[in-house]
Amino acid sequence: MISFGARRMHPALAPMIERNAFVGGCDGVAVTKAAELIDADPTGTIPHALVLMFGDTVEALQAFHEVIDPKVRRVALIDTLQDEKFEAIRVAQALGKDLYAVRLDTPSSRRGDFFRILEEVRWELDIRGFEHVKIFASGGIDEYEILKLNPLVDGYGVGTSIANAPVLSFALDIMEIEGKPMAKRGKRSGAKQVWRLPGAFGNIVLAAGKPAPVDAAGRSAEALLKPLIKGGKIIRDLPPPRTLRDYVIEQMARIELAPARERGLRGDY
Amino acid sequence: MISFGARRMHPALAPMIERNAFVGGCDGVAVTKAAELIDADPTGTIPHALVLMFGDTVEALQAFHEVIDPKVRRVALIDTLQDEKFEAIRVAQALGKDLYAVRLDTPSSRRGDFFRILEEVRWELDIRGFEHVKIFASGGIDEYEILKLNPLVDGYGVGTSIANAPVLSFALDIMEIEGKPMAKRGKRSGAKQVWRLPGAFGNIVLAAGKPAPVDAAGRSAEALLKPLIKGGKIIRDLPPPRTLRDYVIEQMARIELAPARERGLRGDY
Amino acid sequence: MISFGARRMHPALAPMIERNAFVGGCDGVAVTKAAELIDADPTGTIPHALVLMFGDTVEALQAFHEVIDPKVRRVALIDTLQDEKFEAIRVAQALGKDLYAVRLDTPSSRRGDFFRILEEVRWELDIRGFEHVKIFASGGIDEYEILKLNPLVDGYGVGTSIANAPVLSFALDIMEIEGKPMAKRGKRSGAKQVWRLPGAFGNIVLAAGKPAPVDAAGRSAEALLKPLIKGGKIIRDLPPPRTLRDYVIEQMARIELAPARERGLRGDY
Amino acid sequence: MISFGARRMHPALAPMIERNAFVGGCDGVAVTKAAELIDADPTGTIPHALVLMFGDTVEALQAFHEVIDPKVRRVALIDTLQDEKFEAIRVAQALGKDLYAVRLDTPSSRRGDFFRILEEVRWELDIRGFEHVKIFASGGIDEYEILKLNPLVDGYGVGTSIANAPVLSFALDIMEIEGKPMAKRGKRSGAKQVWRLPGAFGNIVLAAGKPAPVDAAGRSAEALLKPLIKGGKIIRDLPPPRTLRDYVIEQMARIELAPARERGLRGDY
Amino acid sequence: MISFGARRMHPALAPMIERNAFVGGCDGVAVTKAAELIDADPTGTIPHALVLMFGDTVEALQAFHEVIDPKVRRVALIDTLQDEKFEAIRVAQALGKDLYAVRLDTPSSRRGDFFRILEEVRWELDIRGFEHVKIFASGGIDEYEILKLNPLVDGYGVGTSIANAPVLSFALDIMEIEGKPMAKRGKRSGAKQVWRLPGAFGNIVLAAGKPAPVDAAGRSAEALLKPLIKGGKIIRDLPPPRTLRDYVIEQMARIELAPARERGLRGDY
Amino acid sequence: MISFGARRMHPALAPMIERNAFVGGCDGVAVTKAAELIDADPTGTIPHALVLMFGDTVEALQAFHEVIDPKVRRVALIDTLQDEKFEAIRVAQALGKDLYAVRLDTPSSRRGDFFRILEEVRWELDIRGFEHVKIFASGGIDEYEILKLNPLVDGYGVGTSIANAPVLSFALDIMEIEGKPMAKRGKRSGAKQVWRLPGAFGNIVLAAGKPAPVDAAGRSAEALLKPLIKGGKIIRDLPPPRTLRDYVIEQMARIELAPARERGLRGDY
Repeated sequence: MISFGARRMHPALAPMIERNAFVGGCDGVAVTKAAELIDADPTGTIPHALVLMFGDTVEALQAFHEVIDPKVRRVALIDTLQDEKFEAIRVAQALGKDLYAVRLDTPSSRRGDFFRILEEVRWELDIRGFEHVKIFASGGIDEYEILKLNPLVDGYGVGTSIANAPVLSFALDIMEIEGKPMAKRGKRSGAKQVWRLPGAFGNIVLAAGKPAPVDAAGRSAEALLKPLIKGGKIIRDLPPPRTLRDYVIEQMARIELAPARERGLRGDY
Repeated sequence: MISFGARRMHPALAPMIERNAFVGGCDGVAVTKAAELIDADPTGTIPHALVLMFGDTVEALQAFHEVIDPKVRRVALIDTLQDEKFEAIRVAQALGKDLYAVRLDTPSSRRGDFFRILEEVRWELDIRGFEHVKIFASGGIDEYEILKLNPLVDGYGVGTSIANAPVLSFALDIMEIEGKPMAKRGKRSGAKQVWRLPGAFGNIVLAAGKPAPVDAAGRSAEALLKPLIKGGKIIRDLPPPRTLRDYVIEQMARIELAPARERGLRGDY
Repeated sequence: MISFGARRMHPALAPMIERNAFVGGCDGVAVTKAAELIDADPTGTIPHALVLMFGDTVEALQAFHEVIDPKVRRVALIDTLQDEKFEAIRVAQALGKDLYAVRLDTPSSRRGDFFRILEEVRWELDIRGFEHVKIFASGGIDEYEILKLNPLVDGYGVGTSIANAPVLSFALDIMEIEGKPMAKRGKRSGAKQVWRLPGAFGNIVLAAGKPAPVDAAGRSAEALLKPLIKGGKIIRDLPPPRTLRDYVIEQMARIELAPARERGLRGDY
Repeated sequence: MISFGARRMHPALAPMIERNAFVGGCDGVAVTKAAELIDADPTGTIPHALVLMFGDTVEALQAFHEVIDPKVRRVALIDTLQDEKFEAIRVAQALGKDLYAVRLDTPSSRRGDFFRILEEVRWELDIRGFEHVKIFASGGIDEYEILKLNPLVDGYGVGTSIANAPVLSFALDIMEIEGKPMAKRGKRSGAKQVWRLPGAFGNIVLAAGKPAPVDAAGRSAEALLKPLIKGGKIIRDLPPPRTLRDYVIEQMARIELAPARERGLRGDY
Repeated sequence: MISFGARRMHPALAPMIERNAFVGGCDGVAVTKAAELIDADPTGTIPHALVLMFGDTVEALQAFHEVIDPKVRRVALIDTLQDEKFEAIRVAQALGKDLYAVRLDTPSSRRGDFFRILEEVRWELDIRGFEHVKIFASGGIDEYEILKLNPLVDGYGVGTSIANAPVLSFALDIMEIEGKPMAKRGKRSGAKQVWRLPGAFGNIVLAAGKPAPVDAAGRSAEALLKPLIKGGKIIRDLPPPRTLRDYVIEQMARIELAPARERGLRGDY
Repeated sequence: MISFGARRMHPALAPMIERNAFVGGCDGVAVTKAAELIDADPTGTIPHALVLMFGDTVEALQAFHEVIDPKVRRVALIDTLQDEKFEAIRVAQALGKDLYAVRLDTPSSRRGDFFRILEEVRWELDIRGFEHVKIFASGGIDEYEILKLNPLVDGYGVGTSIANAPVLSFALDIMEIEGKPMAKRGKRSGAKQVWRLPGAFGNIVLAAGKPAPVDAAGRSAEALLKPLIKGGKIIRDLPPPRTLRDYVIEQMARIELAPARERGLRGDY
């Protein structure tokens, strides 16, 4: 999965968006500068503009094939001018073994049943011996669409649903005054600590002075709230983005599916 | 509107289906033999097969243009091989003023937003000076789809929603025995007459002996139940299909939209 | 289950409808001529007309009982004139051990809670010692209604939901030209073979030249596409309807309930 | 409309229920004692029990006809034993001009389409010349059902939807303490007066000291809160139920349909 | 759970309502006279009126604490004047160990997310060391609300949903005449006996003469229909309410969840 | 209406968000720096923090009243600690004529029926003679909520629904190559001009060379696409934000409510 959506947001935020997309699990990002900063792969395919300039998908692909470093994988964008089925056949016949993948960015007005179009492209490639050509999809892809397309699609370019993901609500509130619990209506008063048990995903929120929770095996939870800035100075190094990303992916497997309410009063907030 | 669906039903019924489609308001039918019998136009366009045989939409159209009687209108089928937008441009540039219409039979898997595809085809034709080229649509068209497409489409080919229209429930029941009203539970007993007031559409069902209803202007209703067969012989000529069709179209304007219940007890059944 | 609906469709299709109803699993059909052709039982019950002619359900039943061959089972139609509950009691008291079943064709306007009416009829028969009398139901029965009524009903007459079953979409398309795969947008090109593994129900669609699929036990699939007509002549005998019906019923037990998509790309179409 | 439901509630409440049903607009009530107290008509029809005792609807009706004061209208209950259609014909033929009405209390299990059953009864009576026979309906009738049946039904017996009508929420709260406004959260403090403008229906709630609202024509509103008990004694005579009922019916025509919110803040509560 | 709703119904019914609420499982009732009669606990808390009279929740609670018998548990009503969160803290700090519970009767206009308000009250009590204070909830509580609030609430006051519970439909019908089964349409004729198998909950309804059903272990069912009045005299003592209540609670654990239909024809009615 | 949401987004975007909120019609913004730049009023009320520090709403308000420039309007925030009804009474009694408004930022967990809370606050203020005190609302306000609250609320603070408003989709596409129309599938080719008729709101999109549309009164449309940058330099001054805002507000009154489709093909895109 490649992050494609930073270009849709304000340029001042592009590096932040790409960094977070990468940390959150994307395999690559599309903004070159951002990719450098986070030590990730800048990734992309032939753009629609190149195909339109040549006026023919195969000619554009062949020109690209002639001049681009052979180490770069050849991914043909096949939705610009004509129907994906026949364009897929043409680009596969033109590049043969050198074609790594086709990419469908099919416009929404032609996406009656995208799964069936993908099935058809897969069939037409296979019946002509191009089983090695992968299929990439982009355009309006989100976490639900991916679950539907996975049986047919080998890779995704995801834009808006990452770059403009729904906002998480958060707030900055007074919780104690001079060490005594005090918070407005609707907020629980007192300093708190957030704990996570070893090998677990969910959080346990306790009043700050309470001892660390212990799991069934007697292991203590880790305190998640740790100072990052002290006296105006950053006092803790953050791991590089790739390390954070590895941690995120490893955590994914532990998501507790039980509804928050069942995890107990104190763990809910 | 052309009836396209007779081929989907049992061949024994094709003439009956086409006759009824024509009587019900279609401008033409697709089955040649049926068209003869009912004095209607057999109508169609270039088939997908011709385009596939040539392997190119424009070549197929030009071959058709060379050999077919100039009186036949040139209608290019533009959804077989490639995207409708570019095919529309190509066929218009190939035939120019000789092109009467393009037909889109776009497969459902490519019909994400059919209205937008049609808008786009109309725009691309117009921006290049082909305002005279009409647009025909076919494939899954029904009475609701037509209302949506009318701002853009000049003609329709309608299949399944006519040829396999929903069944109207009817029954054959004993209503009198030896002249006395007698009917099973759930049926109203006694012979009946069905009346229609002059210039009206709805029916008035009355017991057979009752006098004809009279409208506000004092005009008597016409009795609609008249013998067609007597002693095994057809005793009444039916008007030709075209006359029936004219009558149906004239009746259309009079459809009473008030719900049956409000039209009173006796008019409801 | 008896097929009751052929009379609602065009007479030219009645034998075809009855044959298919029988092949599809019905125990009998209602059209006498069709029954002969397919070697099935023509089946029916006393009609509403007979009850109306006598003006009394019990008198009609007794007249039928007097003159009809004792081998024909006595099935009393009990919804024509009066409430099913009291009619059921009267016909059972009139014929006693000779009554095989009662049939309820209750009009929809009296079917507030058909299950409760059937419960009540069953109770009234049983409390008077007529546990041997079976209950038949007809009128608006479909596959969902049957599941609801099964705890009470011993047999069904099914009409419209068989004779006017929903149309299955199918098409006739060019798939190859001169041996090379070629199909319009929205269709997968190339000749195909349809395979079925031994003891399985679902189909596997493969390109025509591919070898037969093999199941986990090493058994080859059977090719389902076999020529029926060659040079204008029917070259293969079809089994008699009863044999086909046996095959259908045996296949029923194997219906794969997994959604098509999970059965893989190639098996879906 | 007759109130039929008092027997379903606790006997201690029957007179209160019947009085309120009558005041609220019913034309009569079914509990004899209650009818006396409120000077209303005790009303009813032949019961199911009488029909069951005779075992035949017509015999029961004729016995009733023989012995009951001719001033009592003959209303035949026609749903006990057999289908309403044939029972209606039979009772009409038996009593002719002496039959005032038929009553259908059709059990819910036979009420597939009650409107159609009523249409059928009306038709069968009319086709035989019994246009004078009225139709009464009872059983599960509520304010919505009445709107549907009005085109066919001349009178109703209404039970549960009056006797067990939904509870109106009300509360008794402290609003002032020693003359100063004081009320709990969720209540508006201070003594209030409820005003109604002449010829209007909606209430205007104002703080108790405020002057009476005046309508566009300069007429003052009437204060609706007036003492009923003082020093333990009832100090105001209530009008007789029939006068209250007249007032209610006259008020019905004035119901303001505008949503409460649009009627302004102070008038809403 | 305490029954709070008798005051909302007609006073003549209050003892009957409270008796049934208690028999049906409530731990106490609110009407003093009713409590005496059924040997149950009259139960309640400080009312809103007391808090309003003092003008401050804590002052009202302290006055109550001074004069009321120490055996009575101190339950502070904390929703009258101010926000539940801060009132809970104040009453807990005022009474400390003597405070048994807080009660929230929060008005509906302030109940945005009642669960969160309760969570917040629980948290604020706990963080200050008042883990022993229980939480009671009242106001619009029903059987579904209880399931949601149970993780946080220790006791409930339930009013309308018990006192004005939905009416169960029942009827008094003739079933036999002179010993022969006879019932109107929609009813099953004949005297019946209702049986219950040992340790079971569901009923089995059989014709009166039939032998008692026997369970898999050979144990006979108990007949549930037993005479209560004979010759105008009550011939059977009813157990005291507390014994009935114990029986009800013991039966609760046996409720058969299988839908009635699956329990077979005769057991359904 | 004041824009309250810039603080929830990335600080780098705050000035852009505030500028657009102001241009789009807000009366003021909350970020001081942004307000300076756009010549708008920095606006706010007493924060929750101040009330929490004093531990009492009235004390916090009085401290504010003592030290703040009398030209600043006194707006009391009344949802921090206690119920809005009693806090509103207290702050009104404390400041009397000097109190300009109360602000309710009621937490969602206490917002059972916000309209009723506001009605209650309005009532309690009015019954005590504080009709001059205005009501402000904030917290989760959006364009639909405003329509509901307008009968009671005099001003709004709007955050997330402005600062995180839904993204409008836009794209940058090649439309012509060397002056000839050329665009990918799903886009209409050719340079375009966007026109607006005098006094109208909707746009008319035409191919770039087409003459300006003319309205019924013969007035030409204005071309909306005008160069802003040429040769790397900004060549056109933008009007100050306040002028833009005036234009937006004036345009609001002209919004065409007719669905896009009815406005014709070319005006839709």
